[in-house]
Amino acid sequence: MIIPSERTENITYAIRDVVVEAQKLEKLGKKITYLNIGDPLKYDFRTPKHMIDAVAKNIHESSYADSMGLLEARQSVFKEAVRNGTDITENDVVMTSGGSEGISMAIGAIMNPGDSILTPKPGYPLYNAVIEYLHGKQNEYYLDEENDWQPDIDDMRKKIDKKTKAITLINPNNPTGALYTKGTLKKVIDLAGEHGLPVFSDETYDKIIFDDDFKFHPVGTLAKDVPVVTFNTLSKNYLCPGWRVGWLYFSGSGMEKYSEAVKQLARARLSINQPMQYAVKPALEGPQDHITEMVGKLKRRRDITYKRLNEIDGISCVKPRGAFYAFPRIDLKIESDKKFTMDLLREEGPLFVFGEGFGQKKDTHHFRVVFAASEQALNDGYDGLERFVKKNFG
Amino acid sequence: MIIPSERTENITYAIRDVVVEAQKLEKLGKKITYLNIGDPLKYDFRTPKHMIDAVAKNIHESSYADSMGLLEARQSVFKEAVRNGTDITENDVVMTSGGSEGISMAIGAIMNPGDSILTPKPGYPLYNAVIEYLHGKQNEYYLDEENDWQPDIDDMRKKIDKKTKAITLINPNNPTGALYTKGTLKKVIDLAGEHGLPVFSDETYDKIIFDDDFKFHPVGTLAKDVPVVTFNTLSKNYLCPGWRVGWLYFSGSGMEKYSEAVKQLARARLSINQPMQYAVKPALEGPQDHITEMVGKLKRRRDITYKRLNEIDGISCVKPRGAFYAFPRIDLKIESDKKFTMDLLREEGPLFVFGEGFGQKKDTHHFRVVFAASEQALNDGYDGLERFVKKNFG
Repeated sequence: MIIPSERTENITYAIRDVVVEAQKLEKLGKKITYLNIGDPLKYDFRTPKHMIDAVAKNIHESSYADSMGLLEARQSVFKEAVRNGTDITENDVVMTSGGSEGISMAIGAIMNPGDSILTPKPGYPLYNAVIEYLHGKQNEYYLDEENDWQPDIDDMRKKIDKKTKAITLINPNNPTGALYTKGTLKKVIDLAGEHGLPVFSDETYDKIIFDDDFKFHPVGTLAKDVPVVTFNTLSKNYLCPGWRVGWLYFSGSGMEKYSEAVKQLARARLSINQPMQYAVKPALEGPQDHITEMVGKLKRRRDITYKRLNEIDGISCVKPRGAFYAFPRIDLKIESDKKFTMDLLREEGPLFVFGEGFGQKKDTHHFRVVFAASEQALNDGYDGLERFVKKNFG
Repeated sequence: MIIPSERTENITYAIRDVVVEAQKLEKLGKKITYLNIGDPLKYDFRTPKHMIDAVAKNIHESSYADSMGLLEARQSVFKEAVRNGTDITENDVVMTSGGSEGISMAIGAIMNPGDSILTPKPGYPLYNAVIEYLHGKQNEYYLDEENDWQPDIDDMRKKIDKKTKAITLINPNNPTGALYTKGTLKKVIDLAGEHGLPVFSDETYDKIIFDDDFKFHPVGTLAKDVPVVTFNTLSKNYLCPGWRVGWLYFSGSGMEKYSEAVKQLARARLSINQPMQYAVKPALEGPQDHITEMVGKLKRRRDITYKRLNEIDGISCVKPRGAFYAFPRIDLKIESDKKFTMDLLREEGPLFVFGEGFGQKKDTHHFRVVFAASEQALNDGYDGLERFVKKNFG
């Protein structure tokens, strides 16, 4: 029997694990309402046609791409960053296979075994998976539910030690839907500056913002001296997660050696997909109508989600300000939120991911809702949840 | 200044590093003959049209793919393996981003820090890059130039210790062009069996075979009990390296836990590109005419390469039997093969990769030729080499 390496032991991925149970039930004839998949294409969102056309025109470009990425794509990324106020050049940009690969490379190029990277709790499972894979230590700071899920800066400060190599922000946030205020971001940047740490800023959902009074601020525009690695991707804003086109860029000072190390990792894996990178320029420089349309649709679904969840006794939900996630709290006498969501799935059919899958405070229970589903599906799901709660906890 | 992690310190990639010097010279007006790039698309080879059509038809498939890969693609891979005589199912196949990602995942799922994976010397730099990245130890066995670059089984045996986790074979070989005999492979399989080790078999070039009397044998067909991970890709056989579609599959016994660990890694990175995976079925199950044509063209170039190189005093070359690489030896009074190839580049313009970039015995000097270039380019390159040798060593 071949024994797997230790690094693989603690890599779990709750987001996909729940699906196995749902598929079993579906085979038995149960109607499942899938409110668990962070992929808008599985619902009623479609990739903009001008992006599809651009890729189709370049399918025959089948040789290895430049390891750093297609020049045209890197130029579009850098021009957008500069427009927003981050001072970089095309040479600061590396195209990556989705956002995921950029996150892996950025962590791998900075963290020695035993080191830690500060990540949010609740958070996105990929970060801790990569940290475990590379024999680092998970080190999580809390997001504060009482404060609209903003990072708990005091907790963050307490958790920095000599082994800490970077501070990660996911903004707009998965799984809470929170949007971080300028004040919060400045405090994080100051803290990073104090300790000579770079900020890893995951801005995957930066164009999915619902309310005029809540503005998104790219970390690179606020942190002029502090080193920042910004991660982004076409996947969510531009509705093509299965094309695997993302990027990272370096800004701030003191990044020369580190960025070279990341680029060395990029060279070792040769290149990402060449034709798909032709979607970047039309996406970032072409018409943005689909974003207005998508955000409008998602805002209505956010409003339904917020209203319906808060109407259920024992369930409460902070209003999401971006992305397409809500992370409602369960204040009911339950054993675990895993059991709660699994029982709910079996009895009533809506599929949510249990909060433990993202991490959370010990004494609270949550689940994650993906409100990219249709209004009908959302209402079906919330009806089921309401019946389930009344029946079991009424 | 942000300090890169130790894991990035020893990752070098000579194959791309030499290009920097060549580009400088080109800017100064020097004519460079590029015989260094393992990408047939950079020469006169093109992706088969029926594969391009299949992908174009599915560009709009932009949602995340199944983490294990598109079912249709996995089925084609498994059917081909079964046709060849390896007993697997579609569930033993994982689609990967080129061959590279599969190699990374297979190593990562088996090797703890301090462990080693046996890799060939000379070898393909990716393996040692991944081993360094994951804090493993490089452990190289020699390929025996006196024996047509077959693995030196005695050396392999000597290098296995308690920390060894797998034996890697690259067959057909990059950078030597060698094809391993059934006898050699059986000895390696026996050795792996003795020590309870899996064989990692990189069969990237398995359809590029030149001579009727030298047949390619998939390791999975010979190792019925010994666990094998086979790596392959559309990149070279099917001429689309920039599409990044590869795969691995598990065969033999004792792989249950290990294959699950690899799959867990695949889930953590979500999926590879979806539309490109539609090229796999037409590639593996459609017309194979382009392979006959490609192999014919490459065989003529192999013959020119073999003849021309052996005609130069002080240069000798084992006849390549597969892939599109030759690894000629330099028996001249030189300082290093790096200096030799760099001086040659500057004086006469042909660009080869120096042997040290792949590793080799201490007392020998080599360089790698990619003979996928046109006959004209090859002859230009060998003319330049001949003049260079006569002038400097005549």
